[in-house]
Amino acid sequence: MTETTPWLTDPEQHAWRSFIRLHHKLIGRLSREVQAESGMSTTDYGVLVSLTEVPDGKLRVLELAKALEWEKSRMSHHIDRMAKRGLVVREDCPTDRRVAFVVVTPEGRETLAAAAPHHVAAVRRLFIDPLTQEELDAFAKISNRILERMEEDST
Amino acid sequence: MTETTPWLTDPEQHAWRSFIRLHHKLIGRLSREVQAESGMSTTDYGVLVSLTEVPDGKLRVLELAKALEWEKSRMSHHIDRMAKRGLVVREDCPTDRRVAFVVVTPEGRETLAAAAPHHVAAVRRLFIDPLTQEELDAFAKISNRILERMEEDST
Repeated sequence: MTETTPWLTDPEQHAWRSFIRLHHKLIGRLSREVQAESGMSTTDYGVLVSLTEVPDGKLRVLELAKALEWEKSRMSHHIDRMAKRGLVVREDCPTDRRVAFVVVTPEGRETLAAAAPHHVAAVRRLFIDPLTQEELDAFAKISNRILERMEEDST
Repeated sequence: MTETTPWLTDPEQHAWRSFIRLHHKLIGRLSREVQAESGMSTTDYGVLVSLTEVPDGKLRVLELAKALEWEKSRMSHHIDRMAKRGLVVREDCPTDRRVAFVVVTPEGRETLAAAAPHHVAAVRRLFIDPLTQEELDAFAKISNRILERMEEDST
């Protein structure tokens, strides 16, 4: 709270608050809809999407944690809970005991396939339909600009 | 997974994935920075900002839950943990025992004031600086369009 703090201007504040509200409300709403329709959390959904997009449906726990920006230990606990529900299995690396893999099960694939149409319909209704294709392109461009800067910023 | 599911087109998919990545990475990064600098989570921060913006620094637990899009019971547990750290106090309504208020303490105000310059600096570096004012305006406009549609959508 010093004189030198570069507080946000009103238009900057407006843009930032819009993003925070969008983040809270859109993710909150989608989570509730996905949960109600499929019994899965958005993290379950994200894990299954990540796994089904790679050959053999198999990733390291660490890669999965990075893809979803979770701490590795938190992701590891989450994977244990998904494994209990039969959606994934853990597979240890035969040559390096420190490396753990996660593999999607046939049941995990079926659960995702059953949930996906509902999820896509919700994304379309809440995010795609309110915008023109031009606005969607602008949104993607702006988001990617921020993401690229974050990659460069090693703080 | 039926023929009639309106799957996303490639440009739609691109826009949606950009938002999800932005959401994960930007919120993840900010959370880690705020936590490292102030010992507060982004939810602690959001609660203190909401309380310090209203007269008397006082809100109903339910209003706070709505503002941050949390379930009321989860917010109530979170408030209990913040109260233990002296950042807020609970205040019961004298005329209606079902209504609970939360009030920010002087210590909560000081903690927020100490954390705010770091938080603003991080927001500026990660979100404001990479964009032009025109892009910030476009981003806010697009976000608000989606938010307005969500308000109308009662699903």
